[in-house]
Amino acid sequence: MALYKELAQRLRDHIQHDFYKQGDKLPSVRQLAQEHSVSISTVQEAYRQLEQDRLVEAKPKSGYFVCRTEGGSLPSISRPPQRPLEVSQWEEVLNMLMIRASQKGVQLQHAMPDMRAPTLKPLLKTLSDLSKHKPELGLGYSDIRGSEALRTQLCRLAVASGCQLHPDDLVITSGCQEAISVCLRAVTSPGDIVAIESPSFYGSMQAIKAANLKAMEIPTHPETGMSIEALELALDQWPIKTIFVTPTCNNPMGYTMPDEKKEQLYKLAQAYDITIIEDDIYGDISYQFPRPRSIKSFDTDGRVLLCSSFSKSIAPGIRVGWIAPGRYRDRVTHIKYVSSSMCPVFPQLAIEKFIRLGGYNKHIRQMRHQYEPQRDHLLKAIKDYFPSNTRVSFPQGSFILWVELDNDIDTMKLIESCRKVGVGFAPGPLFSATGKYRNCFRLNFSEQNTHRREEAIKLLAKEIKAFSKAE
Amino acid sequence: MALYKELAQRLRDHIQHDFYKQGDKLPSVRQLAQEHSVSISTVQEAYRQLEQDRLVEAKPKSGYFVCRTEGGSLPSISRPPQRPLEVSQWEEVLNMLMIRASQKGVQLQHAMPDMRAPTLKPLLKTLSDLSKHKPELGLGYSDIRGSEALRTQLCRLAVASGCQLHPDDLVITSGCQEAISVCLRAVTSPGDIVAIESPSFYGSMQAIKAANLKAMEIPTHPETGMSIEALELALDQWPIKTIFVTPTCNNPMGYTMPDEKKEQLYKLAQAYDITIIEDDIYGDISYQFPRPRSIKSFDTDGRVLLCSSFSKSIAPGIRVGWIAPGRYRDRVTHIKYVSSSMCPVFPQLAIEKFIRLGGYNKHIRQMRHQYEPQRDHLLKAIKDYFPSNTRVSFPQGSFILWVELDNDIDTMKLIESCRKVGVGFAPGPLFSATGKYRNCFRLNFSEQNTHRREEAIKLLAKEIKAFSKAE
Repeated sequence: MALYKELAQRLRDHIQHDFYKQGDKLPSVRQLAQEHSVSISTVQEAYRQLEQDRLVEAKPKSGYFVCRTEGGSLPSISRPPQRPLEVSQWEEVLNMLMIRASQKGVQLQHAMPDMRAPTLKPLLKTLSDLSKHKPELGLGYSDIRGSEALRTQLCRLAVASGCQLHPDDLVITSGCQEAISVCLRAVTSPGDIVAIESPSFYGSMQAIKAANLKAMEIPTHPETGMSIEALELALDQWPIKTIFVTPTCNNPMGYTMPDEKKEQLYKLAQAYDITIIEDDIYGDISYQFPRPRSIKSFDTDGRVLLCSSFSKSIAPGIRVGWIAPGRYRDRVTHIKYVSSSMCPVFPQLAIEKFIRLGGYNKHIRQMRHQYEPQRDHLLKAIKDYFPSNTRVSFPQGSFILWVELDNDIDTMKLIESCRKVGVGFAPGPLFSATGKYRNCFRLNFSEQNTHRREEAIKLLAKEIKAFSKAE
Repeated sequence: MALYKELAQRLRDHIQHDFYKQGDKLPSVRQLAQEHSVSISTVQEAYRQLEQDRLVEAKPKSGYFVCRTEGGSLPSISRPPQRPLEVSQWEEVLNMLMIRASQKGVQLQHAMPDMRAPTLKPLLKTLSDLSKHKPELGLGYSDIRGSEALRTQLCRLAVASGCQLHPDDLVITSGCQEAISVCLRAVTSPGDIVAIESPSFYGSMQAIKAANLKAMEIPTHPETGMSIEALELALDQWPIKTIFVTPTCNNPMGYTMPDEKKEQLYKLAQAYDITIIEDDIYGDISYQFPRPRSIKSFDTDGRVLLCSSFSKSIAPGIRVGWIAPGRYRDRVTHIKYVSSSMCPVFPQLAIEKFIRLGGYNKHIRQMRHQYEPQRDHLLKAIKDYFPSNTRVSFPQGSFILWVELDNDIDTMKLIESCRKVGVGFAPGPLFSATGKYRNCFRLNFSEQNTHRREEAIKLLAKEIKAFSKAE
């Protein structure tokens, strides 16, 4: 047996006998080489094989870790209808939106970050100071593209995702929802087809609906995102006008599309001469540091419209988002202006200072460190209490994950009984244009109280089991 | 000569000899009847004749007043192209929007209220208190229709314009611009025709453009608004889908459409079974008290979508608007959600308290009393310094008026030289779908410093005269 295979087998044994546990850091290449008296390249080859086996994952600048999915099953690759369809499900989305977060019980349906983090304090102080000492600043009209100072800071942040932007390349919006809505209207005409991941965020799908567009759901892998092959087939077959993707810490699945695939997607858009709308709203709370590249970072001809906001990294109530619209800047500026004129000034100024003085980076570092173990805690609770055939996504960032139950379970019915016992989740059909994923739902794990969440999971598991029997 | 004619002649003499000056209150009907020993109905008949002659105006519950237009000429009734057209002028609008209010000189182009009024202080204090003491309230997601407490207060306010609304009948938006944009998208499909006043607010016209609609400009009277006859002709000839009007304290003309005409307009919409989008943004700062009725107040079948905001009555930076969408509530809620999700909470809560504790009514009373004499001061300055053939609108509320110069003057060129001397105005072509009104512009008179404004008018007059000679 080759040396590297021997070493790989030894490490595999260690992992399978829980000597190294899920999520553990493995010894460095240098350490192993010394320990086993082998060359650096032998160790690298061994790790490469374990990576292929999905037992080990490499984190840039951090080393190798035991994969956390080992043991739990991932949701299956999605198989949406192979034709463009109108988006339905608005009633269902509205029903969920109308449930206030303030409602009793454990509401795990909203994609709401933890907003009690002490690292947010400097931002809140600036906000309060501004409205106390400079109220007049918040009253007038201001730049319709948003605060130039904030746009300058956003350009600084964008470097982390591999983008070189100029403040003039950005337009501030009222959250990411407005950014998405504006971009869709900027690059499509009514009747056009938009390629989307499946499952996909309901807010963007409803924007597709409202703009009188059709959604072409593309099969999506739970670990690497939209299938490039399936997308290419669809592009051959249908006059798709734009590709809408959330490739980094996807909502609802949590995957991050690998860089090579991001680049392939961009090249494909080039080949078919269409645009990409990239929703990067969760990008900054990837558990990976430095954060993953955006598709925008591969953009050489301005066909990528990047949408983002601080709703997930700071708080949704702050309502500050932005667009890097590439060559569609003029159209985007026009539609943003008619859509809601300028954005409130105070939140922009407060965030600008928060970024400038380093508070933002400190905060997202803190959130990364908080959310990753909370994900693992939730995964463990699901494994412990849910039926054994449950499949769960393995988020690479953010604070939401996707659960796939037995095919027979209808989560639209399940949610009724769960509401009664005070547990909320976001049912799967909201994430499909046509109400698929009835046996799936999305859960939030942003809150720090893991005990409370574990109790909720127990309740949820009980309802699922009762439901399975009743069927 | 009939008694009433004699009396009318006597009053006319008094007015023409400046015994009663422009804007003066005239004796009450009872007083005149006693004084001249005639019947009440004779005095009423005399006043009616003077009203027809446009020498006298009746203000509900206040009595009769000498018309302020006496002596100055009104702009002519507009004669827009008699077919639906695509809206142009975005470049021109953008150019103006990019000029910051902070720029040096006297910038009279923006429709910006006076935001230094001490009556705004309680609102600013609440805003500051909220972000200091309850920052968490401003961070989360909230009701997508907006704060229910605020909607309740808005229903109370709506009574003044003759409306009986329920909080569930309202959707809060990010200013009036979003309200307009959402309503247009809710009741039209791309390619549809929208009837609008001419001149018309550029923000709504650009929203028409962005929604891929065509604008049918209807001849508009500078004192009573959109011509009902011309509208009816247009409705016969074209498949108009909705009527967009700003009938109360119109932007840019300042007129208030009389109640009878508002009702006629509504009846016409009923007869042709189409909708009305009513922009009421200036309604609360009508100089008339109680404020004029809205078209919405005549609405018995939910076909009027009322749009408004606090941008003119409080401050534009506050970004709180609303829609009373009648029977289009569900569609409006959907489009509002995809357009920008929910609105920031703090401004809503602060305004709610401001209204509830009476601060809002106090503030708009104050503003009414401030703006009306400022209008008269500006009218006088224009009369004193502008060429004698200048025509000016006579606003019944708000803080903007419309100036019509000699036909030969191109205000798009004039503005270049005026910018150099530090005076700004909003050029006429922005208010037309196709760049008409080149010899017109809109001026703001919200600021309290009348001397500063008078100096600006002198500068402007000088440029106009220089320009006339150069042509």
